[in-house]
Amino acid sequence: MKALNAKSIALAGVFTFGLASHQYLSASDSGNENSSKPNFIVIFADDLGYGDLGIFGHPTIKTPNLDKMAMEGQKWTSFYVAAPVCTPSRAGLLTGRLPIRSGMCSDKRRVLFPDSNGGLPQNENTIARVLKENGYKTAAIGKWHLGHKSPFLPTDHGFDSYFGIPYSNDMDRIAGSGTGDYITSQIMLAEEENFHAYNVPVLRDDRIVERPADQRTITKRYTEEAVAKIKSLKDDPFFIYLAHSLPHIPLFRSEEFKEKSVAGIYGDVIEEIDWSVGEVLKTLKEEGLDKNTLVVFTSDNGPWHIFRTHGGTAGLLRGAKGGTFEGGMREPTVFRWPGKLKQGVVMDMATTMDLLPTFCKLSGTELPDDRVYDGYDISPLLLGTGKSEREVVFYYRGEQVYAVRKGAYKAHFITQNEYGSQTAHPITNPPTNILNSPTVHEPPLLYNVNIDPSEKFNIAEEHPEVIVGIKRVLKEHLAGLEQVENQLEK
Amino acid sequence: MKALNAKSIALAGVFTFGLASHQYLSASDSGNENSSKPNFIVIFADDLGYGDLGIFGHPTIKTPNLDKMAMEGQKWTSFYVAAPVCTPSRAGLLTGRLPIRSGMCSDKRRVLFPDSNGGLPQNENTIARVLKENGYKTAAIGKWHLGHKSPFLPTDHGFDSYFGIPYSNDMDRIAGSGTGDYITSQIMLAEEENFHAYNVPVLRDDRIVERPADQRTITKRYTEEAVAKIKSLKDDPFFIYLAHSLPHIPLFRSEEFKEKSVAGIYGDVIEEIDWSVGEVLKTLKEEGLDKNTLVVFTSDNGPWHIFRTHGGTAGLLRGAKGGTFEGGMREPTVFRWPGKLKQGVVMDMATTMDLLPTFCKLSGTELPDDRVYDGYDISPLLLGTGKSEREVVFYYRGEQVYAVRKGAYKAHFITQNEYGSQTAHPITNPPTNILNSPTVHEPPLLYNVNIDPSEKFNIAEEHPEVIVGIKRVLKEHLAGLEQVENQLEK
Repeated sequence: MKALNAKSIALAGVFTFGLASHQYLSASDSGNENSSKPNFIVIFADDLGYGDLGIFGHPTIKTPNLDKMAMEGQKWTSFYVAAPVCTPSRAGLLTGRLPIRSGMCSDKRRVLFPDSNGGLPQNENTIARVLKENGYKTAAIGKWHLGHKSPFLPTDHGFDSYFGIPYSNDMDRIAGSGTGDYITSQIMLAEEENFHAYNVPVLRDDRIVERPADQRTITKRYTEEAVAKIKSLKDDPFFIYLAHSLPHIPLFRSEEFKEKSVAGIYGDVIEEIDWSVGEVLKTLKEEGLDKNTLVVFTSDNGPWHIFRTHGGTAGLLRGAKGGTFEGGMREPTVFRWPGKLKQGVVMDMATTMDLLPTFCKLSGTELPDDRVYDGYDISPLLLGTGKSEREVVFYYRGEQVYAVRKGAYKAHFITQNEYGSQTAHPITNPPTNILNSPTVHEPPLLYNVNIDPSEKFNIAEEHPEVIVGIKRVLKEHLAGLEQVENQLEK
Repeated sequence: MKALNAKSIALAGVFTFGLASHQYLSASDSGNENSSKPNFIVIFADDLGYGDLGIFGHPTIKTPNLDKMAMEGQKWTSFYVAAPVCTPSRAGLLTGRLPIRSGMCSDKRRVLFPDSNGGLPQNENTIARVLKENGYKTAAIGKWHLGHKSPFLPTDHGFDSYFGIPYSNDMDRIAGSGTGDYITSQIMLAEEENFHAYNVPVLRDDRIVERPADQRTITKRYTEEAVAKIKSLKDDPFFIYLAHSLPHIPLFRSEEFKEKSVAGIYGDVIEEIDWSVGEVLKTLKEEGLDKNTLVVFTSDNGPWHIFRTHGGTAGLLRGAKGGTFEGGMREPTVFRWPGKLKQGVVMDMATTMDLLPTFCKLSGTELPDDRVYDGYDISPLLLGTGKSEREVVFYYRGEQVYAVRKGAYKAHFITQNEYGSQTAHPITNPPTNILNSPTVHEPPLLYNVNIDPSEKFNIAEEHPEVIVGIKRVLKEHLAGLEQVENQLEK
């Protein structure tokens, strides 16, 4: 844990990531098309599993746009999120900091709910806010889930505009809608296309413009908004955060995608998101912007297994949404920036929290160093010029560190059932002591996740020295945390 | 089950797949480079899992050559083998017939062993034999495992030449070599690079030229042989069958690939096979043959899970080598034929048994119709001109049909532990009644493997009509079988 989140750098006031020495930025260029300030687009899916894209091994979900994007750009196979559930994961991405530092995670309430009064504190910096300071236009589209009251909305956090739903698409469920148990009824409501069962609003900036949201066309409308924003913002450098509210349950898709996929309704939904990616990339090309735009695709956490065929798959990874096995926090991630990125597969560790310092580096943007960041600049990996300084990933569940990965080794100090998973499943969630209840492990379970990506073979006994090293890193990390107000419990 | 294996066509003597009407074959071309008889190369791995290649979702095994081959050609995601273990799988590929028809499967001895006296009967046609009749030069390289005594060797079955090991690389183990239980000792022998522990011979045609085989260089030497064959055979159309003996345990790799992969010794082995694929493709290009050569890459059966980190992964598929869940018989498959194949992902069902009729079709080769074939011409799928006639896949274990897939639906009539899997594993092989012992299911378990590729959600109750249809297909199939001498029990 060096560099950005080391306390030592907090003394230097504001520091700038140097520009002049980098061949990929030309000081003489002007105008967005060849600007030294590249555009950034983050496309963020919701509950998409590691194994849900063709290029990540799904046999029946067709994702030709993402497959092509990965082959032309970079496919990242060890890319993590800041938390295995929605709200803290999003806080981590936008602030470059673990959600524990902003009070955006909780052991009691995992995410924000419609009755929550908290949200991302005003004193947090977001990618939008820091880029805006450097002349960027900014737009948020899609699911927010970092507070739906003032001053927690996107437009309170550096985004010039917002269009989307403020929390999860299954919230605000209207009493009496659906029959049967929770899971079955959610599946039925989606299959009946009953979006009226959820009183979720659509906001334009800070105003409600639709309620309930017609979720059947929501992916299509987010896409239209993104295409329009690219066209309207193109004279300035821009940052667009396109956070799809799907494939989080309940599943909906447009008329054109109904039964398009052989993989069922879940496949339809992913294929519409893949179409959406294609529309964004096509627009960039048409507007002459694709060579000056870095596009990132990833997801907020792993698949929600309990929803059966309405949930995704983590592929060969163990675990799912809510848990700290790899399937909960490792995401199918693709970067694209034609002519700039070094094409190929990147196996180095990175996280969504790395986007903030990386975007700052690539755009010559100042990042206020009055706080600790948990992100690292990964531009050397993107450009093929070197490595990042990341050596460690922390796997938080709520406010606690359940696991730590250092290099190829991952130690689980605590393991627990995945989120919402009341019952064991013979295949995905076998009834063993490891999974059925929160269990503290001493020594921790230890896996080499490069050799054993499915976390099957505990090698703690063979590598006590690795555990000592990981414990030291964890101790240092915990010592550096400061108490802040919890936002999710407000 | 129409077309090739319908009994009705057995009356017509010999029939020819028509040539003239097909735009992709030009009658005026001559010479191999532009011949109307394309070259065929089948690269066949041993015990490679569905999830073991980058393009099929493995996060840490680097397979840039196969990834590129898939993106330039076709990635097949529902491609099956004829049996979930070695000998019968190979018999199926080379004869285009289910191994039950040639006596090459058994409930008592799953494969041929060094003490076996049987082998692929002389009256079976192989791809090599039928192509040879049409002017092809033929070469077999690598593992054979269809009989190591005369007249069962490759050179007895239509191959002009042979170089490789006649049975599995873990056979002929020298008494007393290795310590500990079977699995641990196999792993240790590989890690000590102790190839002397296995008295496996290397044959050149029908003569032993080395014993024990130096398995450390075996992949490299197969590759050199393949490259040499391409160069020496290039004046005629050729068929090369390159059947790697790895990643079957014990694992070995050349000096250059030692610790090359971050995924451990198993990763090293796969990366050397990927290198080998690259060498073959490079040679084709250098010799000006790549536009007239159809290359297929697949494997004989799923990963051998019990060997822990020395075994592969089936990715999101359930099951492994020896079993009839998808992981045992669905293989990561890639076709390449620049300028001819319709690029993309193919989700249609196909099997290794389809190669024989497809190669015949593409080369205008006569296929004697004095017998039943289980393969279908898949050239319309390769060329993008249509579909194949395959509607069904049978999953044999030994001499019995355990499962049948018809369209998206798969019915399991019997389920049983995977091959060699004495103990349940909490993740890969959970201790449920389904897996722990051979169990007959009435009604059968029913899965939609397009929507539920991991075979988690039994929908037998919802679809009795599907089960009726599958039972009818199975009954017809069984009625068409004729008793033949068992070769594995000799």
